[in-house]
Amino acid sequence: MKDIENWLGVHEKEAIERLKAFCRLPSVSTDPAFSSDIRRTAEFTASHLKKAGFPSVEIIETEGHPSIIGEWCDVPDAPTILIYGHYDVQPPDPLEKWNSSPFEPVICDDRLYARGVSDDKGPLSIPIEVVTAFHEVRGELPINIKVIIEGEEESGSPHFAGTVERLKDRLACDLVISADGAMWRADLPSMTVASRGLVALEVSVQGAHKDLHSGRHGGSAPNAIRALTRMLASMHDDGGNVVVDGFADTATSPDPAIVKAIEDVNFDAGKYFDDIGAPRPDPLPSGTDLLTLQWLHPTLEFNGISGGYSGVGTKTVIPSGASAKITCRLIAGQKPDQVVANITRHLVAALPQGYTLDITRRGPGSEAFSLDPALPALIVAEDVLTDILGSRPLRVAMGATIPIGAVFARHLGVGTIFFSFSTSDEDYHAPNEFFRLSSFRNGMIAWARLIDQLGKGFL
Amino acid sequence: MKDIENWLGVHEKEAIERLKAFCRLPSVSTDPAFSSDIRRTAEFTASHLKKAGFPSVEIIETEGHPSIIGEWCDVPDAPTILIYGHYDVQPPDPLEKWNSSPFEPVICDDRLYARGVSDDKGPLSIPIEVVTAFHEVRGELPINIKVIIEGEEESGSPHFAGTVERLKDRLACDLVISADGAMWRADLPSMTVASRGLVALEVSVQGAHKDLHSGRHGGSAPNAIRALTRMLASMHDDGGNVVVDGFADTATSPDPAIVKAIEDVNFDAGKYFDDIGAPRPDPLPSGTDLLTLQWLHPTLEFNGISGGYSGVGTKTVIPSGASAKITCRLIAGQKPDQVVANITRHLVAALPQGYTLDITRRGPGSEAFSLDPALPALIVAEDVLTDILGSRPLRVAMGATIPIGAVFARHLGVGTIFFSFSTSDEDYHAPNEFFRLSSFRNGMIAWARLIDQLGKGFL
Repeated sequence: MKDIENWLGVHEKEAIERLKAFCRLPSVSTDPAFSSDIRRTAEFTASHLKKAGFPSVEIIETEGHPSIIGEWCDVPDAPTILIYGHYDVQPPDPLEKWNSSPFEPVICDDRLYARGVSDDKGPLSIPIEVVTAFHEVRGELPINIKVIIEGEEESGSPHFAGTVERLKDRLACDLVISADGAMWRADLPSMTVASRGLVALEVSVQGAHKDLHSGRHGGSAPNAIRALTRMLASMHDDGGNVVVDGFADTATSPDPAIVKAIEDVNFDAGKYFDDIGAPRPDPLPSGTDLLTLQWLHPTLEFNGISGGYSGVGTKTVIPSGASAKITCRLIAGQKPDQVVANITRHLVAALPQGYTLDITRRGPGSEAFSLDPALPALIVAEDVLTDILGSRPLRVAMGATIPIGAVFARHLGVGTIFFSFSTSDEDYHAPNEFFRLSSFRNGMIAWARLIDQLGKGFL
Repeated sequence: MKDIENWLGVHEKEAIERLKAFCRLPSVSTDPAFSSDIRRTAEFTASHLKKAGFPSVEIIETEGHPSIIGEWCDVPDAPTILIYGHYDVQPPDPLEKWNSSPFEPVICDDRLYARGVSDDKGPLSIPIEVVTAFHEVRGELPINIKVIIEGEEESGSPHFAGTVERLKDRLACDLVISADGAMWRADLPSMTVASRGLVALEVSVQGAHKDLHSGRHGGSAPNAIRALTRMLASMHDDGGNVVVDGFADTATSPDPAIVKAIEDVNFDAGKYFDDIGAPRPDPLPSGTDLLTLQWLHPTLEFNGISGGYSGVGTKTVIPSGASAKITCRLIAGQKPDQVVANITRHLVAALPQGYTLDITRRGPGSEAFSLDPALPALIVAEDVLTDILGSRPLRVAMGATIPIGAVFARHLGVGTIFFSFSTSDEDYHAPNEFFRLSSFRNGMIAWARLIDQLGKGFL
């Protein structure tokens, strides 16, 4: 592998220039004002893949922004990996909080600052640069590689699952490796091997057909806020645990490696509350308990509530309607449909007399993602990271939802390894997003070695 | 009294023309765009009092819109009454729902249609016309009469209590008679002898210092909506009864006449729920229970709630803050300060660990109003109504708050009789407000006789 690693070192400056050019394209997927920039970025990405050596590159149209598929599959009997990433970025607002222009990349202290550089243009560029190296140095790959790069990740990937399903034969592979994701902490190598799923609901309660005067009708008329708050309050116990019947009945046990990681990392509960600016509860929960709640417990969170008059001053009104938005994070074994059914049953039973209830499900949701702890490729990836970063990565879970893990499992029947060199402190989704150039360098070596190792039969 | 009643009958057309002129003035107090109209209406009102025969009439400046005071007090040893009314009106919106122009009065089916005609320009014109009759026919009054007419009632009377307190010597009297208020039902003569008081609060709960990602932080971070809904849900029992310690401990027993009235009126609970467009609870409460809740029980109503994201679609956020608006209707014996203290104590105790709480009181509030059931003038008023309307009026309470009863009791030390000929079905505060001309005629006879009777020593 010295040949590949040397080439990558020698051509690092050009790789950084290519990344800067990628970052100059304002590929904001959520704002229609940027749709021509999105198209230009898709074309740039396709061109980058072609120059890297992929013999087949195609821009795939969807009902939203296009995806790009690259294929270089000419090693008979070798395994096939599918690399995932996205070329779209978050909006750069608030612009006034940026120290430099978000689409004019700047290097400072060995960090590259630009919108999207950490999420996901930098991490995605790494395997493309590695393929370039194999192409330039050897003219061939040790394994078969497919790439799919989408343009709607920052908009919730509304068409991605459909695209994967439609193209499942073309995307068939032995393993997905995602260039998206993030190391949990800058000071601690980690591999994300589980993430929580998601379902979203909206609950509306209606009493009278219009708001009523709180003097004339107070005491006799239904108050939709009173009903709704009562119903919502019945969904947790005093400790904040979800008490909806059947909510987590089908949940399975977590990977023991994650439980051990939680114990090992000495999560600082007091610092956590200080960081988010909330009063420390008394008694303070242990860091282990807190991190277990984040990674390994399902949640039922109220994301928004509204009803009646919320303007300035007083309005003596009895609200006819009130509504709340709920999302649940699911753990392995929980089925979105079943969770929605259990919540619906709970709310219907909790609805007081004299009101009507409407529950709307928002989207299909997604199951939790969890990787088989014994997957050989996972152990190969951990070995590679151990060599480069100096200590064995922790297997960590993630409270948030990475829908692609479940999408690839469902439609392609394979696991997904998250092999991103982004770090969660790099202010993606915030002003002054940056990417560590040390991660860029380490990442290229790591991806090169991983591809090499997978070619030796570890799949 | 034949002389006065005859004169009123002969000059009825002119009285209606004067009322129409009054109604042409768009005296909307809440909208600064109408401030010059408010001023013109105050001058019109003062001029009307002068023409009616009041020797002393003055426009009283306040920090808001002016009040008008009229005085005709030259009967030695006779009692003095103070008549209350207001010259301002509600905004006419939505204009498109009016069948005629709101400030161009129209008579149809013996009803006069105009904004403010029922609340309170018609009912207020009645005693002024009656004084005119005494002035024209006899040149003197049987009792001493003062009048105070304010211009901010439809804006919550922000300066009225202060004005009464400042001018309490000048306004000194034996009894207040209000030309504002309303008969409860068109088919049932009634006298309002009690109304509920009011306090208003705003409650805010804060967890973290900003909204957090519901994936990354879900389960470990405080959720302000979860805390607030839990706290609000602890304030009522399943039956909707307030369970705040000490809430109604100091409440006194209601006038037995009101309890009897509630039993007598056969309030139709099913029709009530149908009218407000709410599902009928099962089992349906009795009409007696329902009306008792409206008139004789204190309330704690949630008027508004907000927190987190309430726009379209889903936002996976853990809300840092949530707030609710609360108003309570109070019954006789409950003190606003005490009620606020009890609610505050309850909420502080219900606040979960890990949150901060802010409670803001909105305004001083007002105590309930209740008239001494044995007040001789009340019985005189009831006798007068019995003669004219053919049946003895029921003594009713009112769920809403009439702050003036408490203001006059506090600053002048006297009771207030509500002797208005408005009826609660006359669409005041709504499009197509009207006033029955039969009420105008009956009202003039009733006020003339009441003034005459009070002059005979019933005070």
